[in-house]
Amino acid sequence: MTLIQEKTLGDKVRSDFPILHQEVNGHPLVYLDNAATSQKPQVVIDALRNYYEGYNSNVHRGVHTLSAKATDEYEAARQKVVKFVNAASYQEIIYTRNASEAVNLVAYSWGLNNIKAGDEIILSVMEHHSNLVPWQMLAQRTGAVLKFVELTETQTFDLEQFKSLISTQTKLVSVVHVSNVLGCINPVEDICKIAHENGAKVLIDACQSLPHMPVDVQAMDCDWLVGSGHKMCAPTGIGFLYGKLEILNAMSPFLGGGEMIDEVYLDRFTYGELPHKFEAGTPAIGEAIALGAAVDYLMGIGMDKIHAYEQEMTAYLFEKLKDIPELTIYGPKPQADGSGRAALASFTAGEIHANDLSTLLNDVGIAIRSGHHCTQPLHQYLNVNGSARVSFYFYNTREEVDVFVTQLKETIAFFNQMFS
Amino acid sequence: MTLIQEKTLGDKVRSDFPILHQEVNGHPLVYLDNAATSQKPQVVIDALRNYYEGYNSNVHRGVHTLSAKATDEYEAARQKVVKFVNAASYQEIIYTRNASEAVNLVAYSWGLNNIKAGDEIILSVMEHHSNLVPWQMLAQRTGAVLKFVELTETQTFDLEQFKSLISTQTKLVSVVHVSNVLGCINPVEDICKIAHENGAKVLIDACQSLPHMPVDVQAMDCDWLVGSGHKMCAPTGIGFLYGKLEILNAMSPFLGGGEMIDEVYLDRFTYGELPHKFEAGTPAIGEAIALGAAVDYLMGIGMDKIHAYEQEMTAYLFEKLKDIPELTIYGPKPQADGSGRAALASFTAGEIHANDLSTLLNDVGIAIRSGHHCTQPLHQYLNVNGSARVSFYFYNTREEVDVFVTQLKETIAFFNQMFS
Repeated sequence: MTLIQEKTLGDKVRSDFPILHQEVNGHPLVYLDNAATSQKPQVVIDALRNYYEGYNSNVHRGVHTLSAKATDEYEAARQKVVKFVNAASYQEIIYTRNASEAVNLVAYSWGLNNIKAGDEIILSVMEHHSNLVPWQMLAQRTGAVLKFVELTETQTFDLEQFKSLISTQTKLVSVVHVSNVLGCINPVEDICKIAHENGAKVLIDACQSLPHMPVDVQAMDCDWLVGSGHKMCAPTGIGFLYGKLEILNAMSPFLGGGEMIDEVYLDRFTYGELPHKFEAGTPAIGEAIALGAAVDYLMGIGMDKIHAYEQEMTAYLFEKLKDIPELTIYGPKPQADGSGRAALASFTAGEIHANDLSTLLNDVGIAIRSGHHCTQPLHQYLNVNGSARVSFYFYNTREEVDVFVTQLKETIAFFNQMFS
Repeated sequence: MTLIQEKTLGDKVRSDFPILHQEVNGHPLVYLDNAATSQKPQVVIDALRNYYEGYNSNVHRGVHTLSAKATDEYEAARQKVVKFVNAASYQEIIYTRNASEAVNLVAYSWGLNNIKAGDEIILSVMEHHSNLVPWQMLAQRTGAVLKFVELTETQTFDLEQFKSLISTQTKLVSVVHVSNVLGCINPVEDICKIAHENGAKVLIDACQSLPHMPVDVQAMDCDWLVGSGHKMCAPTGIGFLYGKLEILNAMSPFLGGGEMIDEVYLDRFTYGELPHKFEAGTPAIGEAIALGAAVDYLMGIGMDKIHAYEQEMTAYLFEKLKDIPELTIYGPKPQADGSGRAALASFTAGEIHANDLSTLLNDVGIAIRSGHHCTQPLHQYLNVNGSARVSFYFYNTREEVDVFVTQLKETIAFFNQMFS
C-alpha cells in the first residue's frame, strides 16, 4: 500500500521562489514577514531581466523598435492590473511608486481642491501610517477634522460606531481593507454604501488584501483603492492607484513633468489623458512590466485558491498557537475553517520584548517582524509598546508553521527561565 | 610587423551591456537614444537579481537577517551616490522615483511654503518639461512670476541676459546643467554665484550631465540638484534629489506615510531625520541598490575618462555630419577636440519629418528619437515642430557613428529623390 498525500499549494509553488532556498544562521530560512514584503517568483525576476537585457527603452516617446516594445509591455501590464482588480478601464489605473504615494496623490490632488475647513474625514484607529499621515497633513493645511472609527470588543472595525460618526459633513472615508496588525477583514462594501449615502467619497487601502484574496473594485464600489506591488510578488518601486474614471478626470494633476502633458508653452501647459496625466517623468518601466508578470502569476494560480489555502494555514496556525498560554494575539479569532481574518498573527508574549523574540527566532532562521508595524496609534489604542508579527503567504507551508511554533515555544521558555 | 590599435573605451565596455548584442530588423542594433534612457551593464542587472533572489526584504523596520542586509545595502548605495556627486552628508541624498519627482518635491515642500505672489522664479527656454511644469503649477497656486533666460546667438544659455533678469525679487533659479536638445553645457557655477548674490536659491537639473561628466555639488554650490538613475546605467524607478543639509532640514515633509515618521498619534505626527523624512512608504529598495551598482560601475571607469571619450565621439560625429548640407543641428558647435557640448545632436533635415527619419533609420537597426524631447517651448523658440536626436554614451563606438551617418545620408537621399 502506498500513501499518497496530495501536495499543498505551498509545496507546489515553493520552487518558484529562489530566495526561499537558503540557510540563515545555519538553518533553513523560514520567511514569515510577508505583510512587510513578499518574495518574488522566478517569472517576475525574469521579467525584469528580460526587460533590461532585451528591450529597455523609454516609453511613449519613441518610434524605434525597443521603445515601441517597452511601451507595449508597459501598457499591457496596466491591462493586467485592470483585470486583477476588475477596473472598468485602463484609464483608471495609475502607476505609483508605492501605496503611500497613491494615498498622497489623492490627498494633494483631490484633497487640496475639495476639502475645506470643518469638513470631516473618517479614518480608523487601525490605519497604517501611510493612510493616516497624509490626511493629517491635509487637515493641517485645510482645517479639516479627522474622526476615527474604533474597535469592537473582538478587535474588528466598529461598523455601528462608523454609522454614528458619518454625516453630511463627512467628505471622505479612508480605511484599510485588511489590517496589517489585527488581520481583520473590514466590511468595505458596507462602508462604501454608507459613505455614498452620506455623499462622502471612499478610499480603500488594499495593500494587505490584494495579495491574498480576490478584490473587485466595481463590486466594492470604492472611489479609490491603493495597492503595493512589492507585497504581491512584484518588485519594489511600483504600486498603483485605482480611481473611478469620472473622479480621476475631475482631479488636477499631482506631479508635473514629461509624460503627463499634452501641450506645453513657457507660460502654461495642458495635461494629457488619463492615466498619463498622473504619471510625470520616466516611469518605473521595468518594475511596472514585472508587476504585470506578478499579476499573471497570481491569476495563474487563482486568487480564490490562494485565499482558501491561506485560510487553511490560518486555522492550522491558530490551533497551534492555542497551546502557548503566554501569548496575547491581537485581532479577531478565525473561524474553525480559518476564515474571518488574514493569515497573520500579531502578538505579545508576557513581558518579553518583541524585538528580543524576533532576534532569537532569527538565530534559528525564522524571519518575523517586531515593532509598531507602521501603526503606532493602533498600538497606543491596544496599550502595548509594540508587537511581534508572523505573516504568511501562499508559498509558506505547514512545516514552517510547525518550525515557527516549536521555536517560539522554546524562545518563550528560555525567557521564562531567565526571568524566573 | 603587427599593427596594434588600442581599443577605445566603447570597444572595451561593450560586452558589459547584454542588450547591445542583438539585431533589430535584421541589422545589428545601434542604440543612439541614450539621452532618453541609457542601457544597463550586467553588474547592474545582477545587483537587481541578487537582491530579489538573495535578500529581498523591507528596510529599516526589521531585525531579521534579510531585512538587516537589505537595509545595509540600501544605505550603502546612498553613500555611493553621496560620493558620486560629492555631497557633504548622506542626509543630503533623497531617493525619488525619477528626477521629475525630485523637482516636484522641491516645488511642493519648499515652494508652497516659501514662494508668494509676486516672487520671481527664473528658468530658461531650454528646460525639460520636468523643470518647467512643476514651477508653472507652483506659480498658478502662489501667484509667483516665471521669467526665462533665452539663448545666445550660438544657442547657449545667455548669461548676460540672466544677469539682467535676476534681482532681489528672484527667489529661485532652476536651470538645466546640460540641455537634452541643444547639448550646451550651462555655466552652473556662475549661475549659482550670481543667484546667491541676489539671495535666490538654485536648483540644477543634472539629468544630462551626471551620466557623462564629473559633477561636484559642493564646487558648483547649488542648493538642490536632481538626477535620474535610468539615464546613468541604473534601473528605471529610481532617481535622487541632492539638497544642502540646512535647506532640506528647513523644508516640510512632502509625502506622508511609513518610513518618514518618528512618532505618530491619531491627531499628529513628528517626522524622522533626513534623509528618511522625504522617503514615505516602502522605497524602491532593489532599484536603489542597483543605482549603487551603477555608480560603482561608472566610477570604476572614471567620469573623467567617460567625458573624454564622449568628447572624442562628439568631434568625430560633428566632423562627419558636416558633409550633410540638408542638416540644421541645434545648439553650439563643439571645439575641434569635441569639447564644449554634449555627445548628442538634435537636428532637422530640410522638409523631412523627424518621425519619418527615425522610422527609416529603425528599419536598419538604428534607434534614434524624434519629436519634442519633452522641450516643446524650446522647439517653439527654435521655430520647429520637432527634431530628430542622436545621443551617445560611452559604450557607443566610432563604427556606430559611421553606420548612423551613412544611413542618415541614404535616408535623406531617399526623401530627396521622392520629393524631387
